[in-house]
Amino acid sequence: MHIIADNIQITNPLIAKALDEMDPLPVQDLAKKCEAAGADILDINPGPLTRDGEEKMSFLVEAVQQVCNLPLSLDTSNPSAMAAGTKASREKPVINGFSLEPAKLEKILPLAAKFDCDIIGFLLYPNGMVPGSAEERLNLAVQLFEEFNEKGIEPQRLIIDPALVPLMWEDGSRQAMEILTVIRMLTDLIGFPVRTIVGLSNLTSGKGPKEKKLFLEAVYLSMLASVGLDMVLMNIFNQNTVSVVRACDSITRQGTFSWEEVP
Amino acid sequence: MHIIADNIQITNPLIAKALDEMDPLPVQDLAKKCEAAGADILDINPGPLTRDGEEKMSFLVEAVQQVCNLPLSLDTSNPSAMAAGTKASREKPVINGFSLEPAKLEKILPLAAKFDCDIIGFLLYPNGMVPGSAEERLNLAVQLFEEFNEKGIEPQRLIIDPALVPLMWEDGSRQAMEILTVIRMLTDLIGFPVRTIVGLSNLTSGKGPKEKKLFLEAVYLSMLASVGLDMVLMNIFNQNTVSVVRACDSITRQGTFSWEEVP
Repeated sequence: MHIIADNIQITNPLIAKALDEMDPLPVQDLAKKCEAAGADILDINPGPLTRDGEEKMSFLVEAVQQVCNLPLSLDTSNPSAMAAGTKASREKPVINGFSLEPAKLEKILPLAAKFDCDIIGFLLYPNGMVPGSAEERLNLAVQLFEEFNEKGIEPQRLIIDPALVPLMWEDGSRQAMEILTVIRMLTDLIGFPVRTIVGLSNLTSGKGPKEKKLFLEAVYLSMLASVGLDMVLMNIFNQNTVSVVRACDSITRQGTFSWEEVP
Repeated sequence: MHIIADNIQITNPLIAKALDEMDPLPVQDLAKKCEAAGADILDINPGPLTRDGEEKMSFLVEAVQQVCNLPLSLDTSNPSAMAAGTKASREKPVINGFSLEPAKLEKILPLAAKFDCDIIGFLLYPNGMVPGSAEERLNLAVQLFEEFNEKGIEPQRLIIDPALVPLMWEDGSRQAMEILTVIRMLTDLIGFPVRTIVGLSNLTSGKGPKEKKLFLEAVYLSMLASVGLDMVLMNIFNQNTVSVVRACDSITRQGTFSWEEVP
């Protein structure tokens, strides 16, 4: 499983300040720490970028690339900022992401075609609502592939995010189990190995003790690994969760087992 | 998920000595500790009991029952000892267990009929060999149910153990994944909710660092929980693994989520 570090984000006050002052050093420091902690991909999430979006996204991409060779995933709802960040990227980034929401279909999805990039597609209704069942999610996945087909984008470019919901929602644990079914069934439904991703912290968002949240996330991540999850967006500094990813790999990879690969 | 503590076993020198001297106190001390640590059922495993089997199994059952109200599972290949232990049990014990091996079919399985007990059935070939694929395991499960049918035993009495193999075997990780498929598919195949159990330590038997073994077991146990595993036979003093069981329950149980139920 590939780990996408979600640490470089605007909700981190150090990143917010660095972006405000266009100071690359705090961004670079964090990028290096994420790489050292085991990230495979760095997500760059500057928020909606209502002002100077292109300049700011380019600044972040360039700052990170000066100190780090990891591939990037670009996380903004601002299409021109997304385009600028994609142009600034040495290697094709992952576009994070789109859904059936009209604004995303019209403005973000075409960037995947234009720049020939992988793109994350969320299983959400056009109004942004979360689907309630495995069947609804699988129907939405088919619709995402239809959009790809219409726009002439390679279907292998789509990475599906089934949209985790908090366990604390009234039907949260039921949805958590349905999402396992969705990930397990996607490949058979679509007819080739569809890549999948989740934003792990969504499972426990809301109030709750941090240690219990991390414990639940790690347990659920093992379940996700067993149905073939390809990527996880997570805080790379949660080292126990990283260890769980490695342990899952040693079981699911189906190669020769080696204790050296177990954390 | 129900936890069956495997701690009361002959490989523990304190239990071996207590059984040799017919001294109930060390057995009772351990039984109380297992109950306090969260066991739902106590497995009593005195080995093959080649001498004085009936007397020794009865002694163990009575010793434990004097200090503890948990249900028991009786774990011996000696049929007369199994019968004596079953008779001595206040509550119907789980008989652990049988397989298609002729000696087990002839001598152990009939005890489930005679005493109307639950019995664990291992997915092993008649020669004791472990099956290699999910399909082989599912075929063996069907054969176990046919044996039940022939002997007129209620099929709901069967608890299936798919026979974990060590990850370190050449195809160990492949088998670990196939076993998830077996557990997930059993209920559809057989037509009612078939209960399942695994002996968790079998996943990591052989050489290897203990901490890594426990970490892998906990990760794999989460995967097993997600496909509906009902019971786990494990060392109840591995408190992290117990916590993983509780966390899995809070996700798989499909009730209203509560932080209080998360360890």
